[in-house]
Amino acid sequence: MQNASNLNIGVVLSGSGWKDGSEIHEAVVTLLHLDRAHAGIVMMAPDTEQMDVVNHLTNKQIHGEKRNILIESARIARGDIRDIKNVSASELDGLIIPGGSGAMKNLCDFATKGINMTVNPHLEKLLKEIHAQKKPLGFICIAPMIAAKVFGYEHPKLTLGNNSGAARQIEAFGAKHVTCPVDDIVLDETLKIVTTPAYMLGPSISYISLGIEKLVQKILELADTRNS
Amino acid sequence: MQNASNLNIGVVLSGSGWKDGSEIHEAVVTLLHLDRAHAGIVMMAPDTEQMDVVNHLTNKQIHGEKRNILIESARIARGDIRDIKNVSASELDGLIIPGGSGAMKNLCDFATKGINMTVNPHLEKLLKEIHAQKKPLGFICIAPMIAAKVFGYEHPKLTLGNNSGAARQIEAFGAKHVTCPVDDIVLDETLKIVTTPAYMLGPSISYISLGIEKLVQKILELADTRNS
Repeated sequence: MQNASNLNIGVVLSGSGWKDGSEIHEAVVTLLHLDRAHAGIVMMAPDTEQMDVVNHLTNKQIHGEKRNILIESARIARGDIRDIKNVSASELDGLIIPGGSGAMKNLCDFATKGINMTVNPHLEKLLKEIHAQKKPLGFICIAPMIAAKVFGYEHPKLTLGNNSGAARQIEAFGAKHVTCPVDDIVLDETLKIVTTPAYMLGPSISYISLGIEKLVQKILELADTRNS
Repeated sequence: MQNASNLNIGVVLSGSGWKDGSEIHEAVVTLLHLDRAHAGIVMMAPDTEQMDVVNHLTNKQIHGEKRNILIESARIARGDIRDIKNVSASELDGLIIPGGSGAMKNLCDFATKGINMTVNPHLEKLLKEIHAQKKPLGFICIAPMIAAKVFGYEHPKLTLGNNSGAARQIEAFGAKHVTCPVDDIVLDETLKIVTTPAYMLGPSISYISLGIEKLVQKILELADTRNS
């Protein structure tokens, strides 16, 4: 295992729970593999209201309930999390976005607007700056949709697992969809963008952990190569 | 790695977030190691209101907000979770309780009553039945306090990590506290009770994962020995 103690990797959360926030297993497994490599971890989230709050037992929206993305993400982060608007690209050697519906509801508005979506402006700015600095970006599960929107003009190779409707939508942004099993990654070496399907395919946490471990290792390797 | 596909292990959650529910990393890492061994996982939680709701960013209680333990636990369980009152010992080959303040606020009332606490009656009944059937029980982080209360009369060997005030409190119930580093377990072989300090010591997820992995493997081994 690589010792990445010289690297700081950002992790963007979007709440806590896959129906209205970050997919918890994907987020925690990302932290586990980063920490195993001794990487510094900079967790962040937007300090705004979630699009909605969903009862994860019944799958029904809880009408009238409001939760804040940053405050809920702090549950996964054990309090160690910052408002994304205060994080600059120069602090980071790379950045990873776990999936969950929160990525489509709270980091962008794909959930309501489809391909007419916009990305949270602080996140979009950060992604563009990190990318301009030739640092690697990782997107898990459904989060590659954000990469497709922001970097579609560069035609990144991305995966959402199977060739589903969502895969066709990332192609509408200009991205190239590549099928990929849950235990593997798709690497766009030129653009330094790494993706893995995770719970787009599942079926369970030990499987998604295999792909996320490869994604984390590739992000650290790309970040490290840049430094050396 | 053992193939435990013949075993069903219960995991008791107490909400989602370490200040008012289950410690998310401990819960997810428990699921990861169980799933890696192909064990069946039966997640459960009480279907009652949390003792409180805490803002994990500021560490302040959010007055007036109510959340349900089972519904919040469903975030970690991705919806695959049952009311603990409907789970019987005969369905399970062993049971694990992750830590977090929720274990002391929602599974028992240690947080407000100290050693005068009582344990959720459905959980207490389930623990006693599983134990009577000679099946193993695992307790992570602060959760050994529950083992001390329920089984103190049998003087179980348990760990909370260091000899802290909490360690003295489990001894008040009749348990014997054993110091233990974060990457290890304490096994009471006679009683088939396994404990690991996790975030009682920390400092981070890769460390707590080492101890939890050993705990899961020991639980599966004890459960399997019983079957063979």
